[in-house]
Amino acid sequence: MQKHEVVIIGGGGGGLTAALAAKKTSYDTNVTLITKDPLSYSPCALPFVISGEIDSFERISKRIEDICRNSGITCVIDEALGIDTKKKAVKTRKSEFRYTSLIIATGGTPLIPPIKGTHLKNVYTLYRLEDAEKIMDAAKNAKSAVVVGGGAIGLEAAAALIESGLKVTLIEGLEYVLSKALDADYSQAVENKLAENGIELIKGINVEEITGASRVESVKVAGKEIQADMVIMVTGLRPNVKIAESAGIETLKGCIKTDEYMESGVKGVFAAGDCAITKSLITGKPAPGLLGTIAIRQGTVAGMNSVGEREVFENVLGAMILRIFDIEVGRTGITEKEAKSEGMETVTGKIKSTTTAEYYPKGKGIEVKLIFNAADKRIVGAQAIGGGGVAGKINLLTLAIAKNMTVDDLIRMEYCYTPPLAPSHNPIVLAAENAYRKMKRLAERDKRLGKA
Amino acid sequence: MQKHEVVIIGGGGGGLTAALAAKKTSYDTNVTLITKDPLSYSPCALPFVISGEIDSFERISKRIEDICRNSGITCVIDEALGIDTKKKAVKTRKSEFRYTSLIIATGGTPLIPPIKGTHLKNVYTLYRLEDAEKIMDAAKNAKSAVVVGGGAIGLEAAAALIESGLKVTLIEGLEYVLSKALDADYSQAVENKLAENGIELIKGINVEEITGASRVESVKVAGKEIQADMVIMVTGLRPNVKIAESAGIETLKGCIKTDEYMESGVKGVFAAGDCAITKSLITGKPAPGLLGTIAIRQGTVAGMNSVGEREVFENVLGAMILRIFDIEVGRTGITEKEAKSEGMETVTGKIKSTTTAEYYPKGKGIEVKLIFNAADKRIVGAQAIGGGGVAGKINLLTLAIAKNMTVDDLIRMEYCYTPPLAPSHNPIVLAAENAYRKMKRLAERDKRLGKA
Repeated sequence: MQKHEVVIIGGGGGGLTAALAAKKTSYDTNVTLITKDPLSYSPCALPFVISGEIDSFERISKRIEDICRNSGITCVIDEALGIDTKKKAVKTRKSEFRYTSLIIATGGTPLIPPIKGTHLKNVYTLYRLEDAEKIMDAAKNAKSAVVVGGGAIGLEAAAALIESGLKVTLIEGLEYVLSKALDADYSQAVENKLAENGIELIKGINVEEITGASRVESVKVAGKEIQADMVIMVTGLRPNVKIAESAGIETLKGCIKTDEYMESGVKGVFAAGDCAITKSLITGKPAPGLLGTIAIRQGTVAGMNSVGEREVFENVLGAMILRIFDIEVGRTGITEKEAKSEGMETVTGKIKSTTTAEYYPKGKGIEVKLIFNAADKRIVGAQAIGGGGVAGKINLLTLAIAKNMTVDDLIRMEYCYTPPLAPSHNPIVLAAENAYRKMKRLAERDKRLGKA
Repeated sequence: MQKHEVVIIGGGGGGLTAALAAKKTSYDTNVTLITKDPLSYSPCALPFVISGEIDSFERISKRIEDICRNSGITCVIDEALGIDTKKKAVKTRKSEFRYTSLIIATGGTPLIPPIKGTHLKNVYTLYRLEDAEKIMDAAKNAKSAVVVGGGAIGLEAAAALIESGLKVTLIEGLEYVLSKALDADYSQAVENKLAENGIELIKGINVEEITGASRVESVKVAGKEIQADMVIMVTGLRPNVKIAESAGIETLKGCIKTDEYMESGVKGVFAAGDCAITKSLITGKPAPGLLGTIAIRQGTVAGMNSVGEREVFENVLGAMILRIFDIEVGRTGITEKEAKSEGMETVTGKIKSTTTAEYYPKGKGIEVKLIFNAADKRIVGAQAIGGGGVAGKINLLTLAIAKNMTVDDLIRMEYCYTPPLAPSHNPIVLAAENAYRKMKRLAERDKRLGKA
């Protein structure tokens, strides 16, 4: 049997997990990780260093060389310049590496919209540790900031800056914040929380221009000019696929196209993380993954398969959670809005409940919405917001969607209860019962109308 | 169609839920709830009033008459004395009620072992609100207490009393606390927490005698005499089935025997809650349910079916959680110990992780153990202990067991992540990966040995 020689390009979540998975699966294999950045960290952690909740960048980062040394992986701090798929070699700035299996985990680059003034000083993106360092430095001397982009990182950045004492305006081009993740009703609760904490929100309109001599001075939007000592652009990510494209590796929607084994169009070449494509489990449509959890799972699969396993990466639901001030917001599957645009008729179950027994003094509110396909009663999406316990609910509901469960499965679900930790009536069960009764009424109506 | 006339005996979790479910399902039906106790409350809440965490008994209780009035249910405060299944009538102390459907939800009575001295003053059980009131009163003048029984309520009672300033000894007859719920390794962590908080534990031996003139003075165990101003006996529950048995309704293991519709051997007579039987989803063996969550689900099913639905109550896994001091302890399915006694070979996956990203300052530890059937890789049990997020994990794993999921389903599970609320590598996935690798090694060994 030919000995595997695994080379990985990229030391982010996807690449590092792939290296570790390859080594764990086949300890005798030589695994080489090529990374430009010597540090490993989660970009999701950056807003919490900016806010001061986490006290230093050292705390969130590890040296990739150290991780590799402890795991028997060869770490090369270098830049990959090209891939020769015939020769099975990666050319770097300083050297060349031969492989039997290659994993491309080149991540992404912040996408900046074509607005005048984005080149000015004190206009930042927020994806890399260096970005966050610059933002923290600038915030020390700034009185006001504009954050452009109302996705998760944009919201967390806005919260971090207002907690640092700045005046903060958040601008979202779409009709509401977290608009790809949530329906309008759940987004409204988030927007209320922003307002309550002093963040001014401008939405449904794009930034016209960023103005200033050398440094940013203001942001023009909706005919207004908002004074800003700094601007953070959190307006999406462009997957880094140039090196793959130059090597003739097929792409799709700007990502490296892969099969369920995370193998690209070229045999023995895998991809993982922000540069790789995923498919929606509900709609079957391809889309970039762009979540740390997806990068980790793709890295695990690519790493295992690079040494001869046949592990599968399944289609995704986009399970997501964020904490914004004192509330937790989570979602999975598709929204009602997205279902509508897909032509799917839905029935929703909604409930307001508590994180503990309702009489327990430290309990907090929680709201859960379940979205079912009216045609087959299968759960296709869920949203939750509240003072605690959202992650566990979103994970459970993600599994329920992935495993084709129906409203009946959820009303019959067994669960645990104790007054200080969970209410005696589980909120998911209650929301499912709410949907169940709606479906029953709809079926009775259809029967009366002679439809069924 | 004959109009339903639903009568329910018992206003506890099972009975009240049944009344509400019957009325919600069929608003035109007359629903009559007969209850001796005018108050509705969860027995699980009582230790938290004793500890002072919940400031009054009023907060945890509601008048059943009020709940019924708001829901269009007839509430009768009276004691059911007999059932005539031919005449379809319930005889009470004051009256008689005819039914088309009857739901028996008579709950249980604390089981007191045959020890000398249990009749003494200041020896209490802890199942009813009155018990807890007496315990709180006695604790005001007591310096020391002995709690007999190391199940969930026993542990919570011991914690409540030590937090009230008493010297507390806990006596458990079996080899470790929570011995039906947990394996020895996870019980050990709980016992460490008891010791850390000053509770003295005596285990593996039964109480010999409770001594005293009129009031309890000491408890004799293991040749020692432990001084005690009060004793709480939390030594199990005996289902109240006398009224059912007298009416010729079949029982099993001291519980009312029912089918999956919660219907007893007599057509039109249902049972729910602590007096009804359940079956283990793993072993198929019948056992009392004895959990509030099971009573609620059985009540829902009995209530719906009493007015003509055919909803199903599924076999149970015993999903359970408790909080003891600052840790959460949860379990579901079967333990390794129980699997062994059933002749099932298991593979476990274990992991130590954190409730947040590992670098997030407020994170707490969490440990997860997954138990798989070695023969088919299906998950059959799980235990978790830690500083947070245990309920959500136990609920997810309960669903995974109920839906026959395997180790592959769990390693492929999508989940959510954000540094302040969840780690980037989900502990359930990590524990499943641990088991997956063990299974792979076992398979390779079997292959080498020519077994497979």
